[in-house]
Amino acid sequence: MDQVTSIGALRKPLPEELRLALAALFEDRFSTAAAIREHHGRDESSYDPMPPDAVVFAQDTEEVAQAVSLCAAHGVPVIPYGTGTSLEGHVLALRGGVTIDLSQMNRVLAVHADDLTATVQAGVTRKQLNQEIRDTGLFFPIDPGADASLGGMAATRASGTNAVRYGTMRENTLALTVVTADGNVIKTGTRARKSSAGYDLTRVFVGSEGTLGIITEVTVRLYPQPEAVSAAVCSFPSTAAAVNCVIRTIQMGIPVARVEFLDENSVRSINAHDSLALPEKPLLLFEFHGSEHGVREQAQLVQDIAAEHGADGFEWATRPEDRTRLWTARHNAYFAMLQMRPGARAISTDCCVPISRLAECILDTQADCEKQQMVYAIIGHVGDGNFHVLMMIDPHDPVDVAKAEGVNARMVARALSMDGTCTGEHGVGMHKMDFLLQEHGAPAIDMMRLLKRAFDPANIMNPGKIVRW
Amino acid sequence: MDQVTSIGALRKPLPEELRLALAALFEDRFSTAAAIREHHGRDESSYDPMPPDAVVFAQDTEEVAQAVSLCAAHGVPVIPYGTGTSLEGHVLALRGGVTIDLSQMNRVLAVHADDLTATVQAGVTRKQLNQEIRDTGLFFPIDPGADASLGGMAATRASGTNAVRYGTMRENTLALTVVTADGNVIKTGTRARKSSAGYDLTRVFVGSEGTLGIITEVTVRLYPQPEAVSAAVCSFPSTAAAVNCVIRTIQMGIPVARVEFLDENSVRSINAHDSLALPEKPLLLFEFHGSEHGVREQAQLVQDIAAEHGADGFEWATRPEDRTRLWTARHNAYFAMLQMRPGARAISTDCCVPISRLAECILDTQADCEKQQMVYAIIGHVGDGNFHVLMMIDPHDPVDVAKAEGVNARMVARALSMDGTCTGEHGVGMHKMDFLLQEHGAPAIDMMRLLKRAFDPANIMNPGKIVRW
Repeated sequence: MDQVTSIGALRKPLPEELRLALAALFEDRFSTAAAIREHHGRDESSYDPMPPDAVVFAQDTEEVAQAVSLCAAHGVPVIPYGTGTSLEGHVLALRGGVTIDLSQMNRVLAVHADDLTATVQAGVTRKQLNQEIRDTGLFFPIDPGADASLGGMAATRASGTNAVRYGTMRENTLALTVVTADGNVIKTGTRARKSSAGYDLTRVFVGSEGTLGIITEVTVRLYPQPEAVSAAVCSFPSTAAAVNCVIRTIQMGIPVARVEFLDENSVRSINAHDSLALPEKPLLLFEFHGSEHGVREQAQLVQDIAAEHGADGFEWATRPEDRTRLWTARHNAYFAMLQMRPGARAISTDCCVPISRLAECILDTQADCEKQQMVYAIIGHVGDGNFHVLMMIDPHDPVDVAKAEGVNARMVARALSMDGTCTGEHGVGMHKMDFLLQEHGAPAIDMMRLLKRAFDPANIMNPGKIVRW
Repeated sequence: MDQVTSIGALRKPLPEELRLALAALFEDRFSTAAAIREHHGRDESSYDPMPPDAVVFAQDTEEVAQAVSLCAAHGVPVIPYGTGTSLEGHVLALRGGVTIDLSQMNRVLAVHADDLTATVQAGVTRKQLNQEIRDTGLFFPIDPGADASLGGMAATRASGTNAVRYGTMRENTLALTVVTADGNVIKTGTRARKSSAGYDLTRVFVGSEGTLGIITEVTVRLYPQPEAVSAAVCSFPSTAAAVNCVIRTIQMGIPVARVEFLDENSVRSINAHDSLALPEKPLLLFEFHGSEHGVREQAQLVQDIAAEHGADGFEWATRPEDRTRLWTARHNAYFAMLQMRPGARAISTDCCVPISRLAECILDTQADCEKQQMVYAIIGHVGDGNFHVLMMIDPHDPVDVAKAEGVNARMVARALSMDGTCTGEHGVGMHKMDFLLQEHGAPAIDMMRLLKRAFDPANIMNPGKIVRW
């Protein structure tokens, strides 16, 4: 069923018996206040809010299980909520129901430094985890733009700037605790680094966006802080030159830790937002991790490749404060770009293609944006073949929305024709369900639907996301 | 239902109509000859053969889909077969049915060297793939002991000696073509390096051992051949010293490409089998990949750690032919060990624990083997916390079998108590179903069963493996 028509048709008031039971269980952590519901009915997408009927703030797995059991008994939808920073409408309460806010589940449960693992409650954010483990000499590398929760990052199969070297949540999640649709609690794995023990339940739930169960605890891999880190910024005469430099770097197997592309529009907006003075040309931001010598060696190789592609010098940021400033600017890019058109909301696209096709995919997309006269900027985790176009639009102007959706649809079609994907790291939510069908084809989507129906036969777990019922 | 009682109870003769249809379709690639059936009814485990009723040799995905459709119409079991090198009874036809031999599906379909990917038919073996891509400067790192097929490796979530650096089939499979239980053909992914596009069907099928569908094509990641490679052998005064050296190496984040442990018994057997003269003491075999300088740097760090743990020198094998000889000996270890007790069959165990617990797990297991007076050897992909005990037994001597199963059961219990897994890389097959329940607990196994029933409602896909119906 189409989401928009479903809202009115399927939305029912919260049963009084359920309301009373949740209120008794959660006391002042149960709310039906309009402001609380409104806050939980939106994410960073350009959709208008669709608030749930109630919100509970859970503090442990057992409370989540109790809330789900109660909702299941009444056939009421349940939506998990971490930091609300998703980008495709993941947390919108399309059919009402109860949002379970996990932000108070913010305890780091165990750090096994000797095993390079940590287990956290789902509401712990990536920055909090890194803060709490800073004395161990270890770090957790995965860094989506927002300071997202680990539960949300697992649920959307998030990645970020370090994925080219360290992988995504897919590779770095060892085990999960999950509350299933009938309120049972399961553990999906162990702390062993690898396993062939049966179906990979961990990776069934990673990327399932709350539609198969609610992730309440996450065990992740940690990494020793590298002996040496250096960062470099490098401007190019054209987008093609910058991206071709990255393609060559990846094909040579140089183990860069990060390589980010920013188009001229992005550079201009972060210059303004973060008081930087970067040349307003297509730019690559590199980071190298390793031994002192290894880092120098990698950087020299990349510098040579950059020079072959006409780069304007190679500016080093070896002092930690300079590196932090650059990467903070990069992480703030989303907010910086919003300032390109004050009052606008952003539509963010997110495709990922095999590396050899990346330049072509970005250039054709850029040409389309120019043709449509969009206010836009392009940034990319280009080492993975992943990039985002942010288009600043007025979400209430149908012409604006249609133009942006047109650019997005053509970009997805382009990525799929290159054997790429409609979403590298943002997930499907309610926005990419049609693209998902284009990407996988009906028989594969049928298998996804079989999985959804097997794990959530009453369709109460974040309904209306990923696959249509 | 218990497997052993199920054999007689559920085995029915092949319906004549199905036999005729398969014979018409596959012509001389359809067989009911006793020798062919017998050959397909066994693997490298110590189980007696359980032959299927018929074998077909498929040459492409469409033929597999046709065979599955025909079997599905008659409710007849279907078992995929690659090289028959599984270790837990994966390919035994517990309930009869039709084995689909994929060894003639041996074409490399596409090598995208610029994207570092290859797509192969499921019957292509790992050595064949590396042979066919040798001129591209790339290689495929995953190397279980046998020259297994890529389809079988994906189906068992295999790994091997390079996994510590390059990951397992879980991390290196980008996409699969799968024939589902009703004979449909699906593609589970694209060639993008990362994706958040819906449920991770690729990883649902990786490790599913033919019980959810038949993998017919595999797209894998390739890696640039390292600029420099060096290998070193190093003997230790004790097992504890050797394993503690590895633990320290991993904790420091040194990116070793391989680190293999061989106990004294293993060294003795490969010395005899491969005419080597290694000191008959616990031994580590290292390999380093990187730049010339990087490899020297890693090796020096590891050499220092080894010295701290009382290692007897560090013997280098820098010439390719010396390295090949060492690694060939390591890969032949399984067959070398079988010679420790001529005429015996091997029971191979396969647990994996968090790295800090590895020494304790190996030492306690070794003590148990000694106490039980087993003919045994221990080898391990110790960088991952994974090791195998091979016990050479007479599979028809119940005392011998009971002793070996006792060692295995205690070792699994030990690994699980350390938050490890009952199988690092061999899979579940028919041998580890009870251990799987111990590891995951009943609620998680119930979720696996929901998945199995959703994807294979008639229970025809390799029935009797992984989860009980």
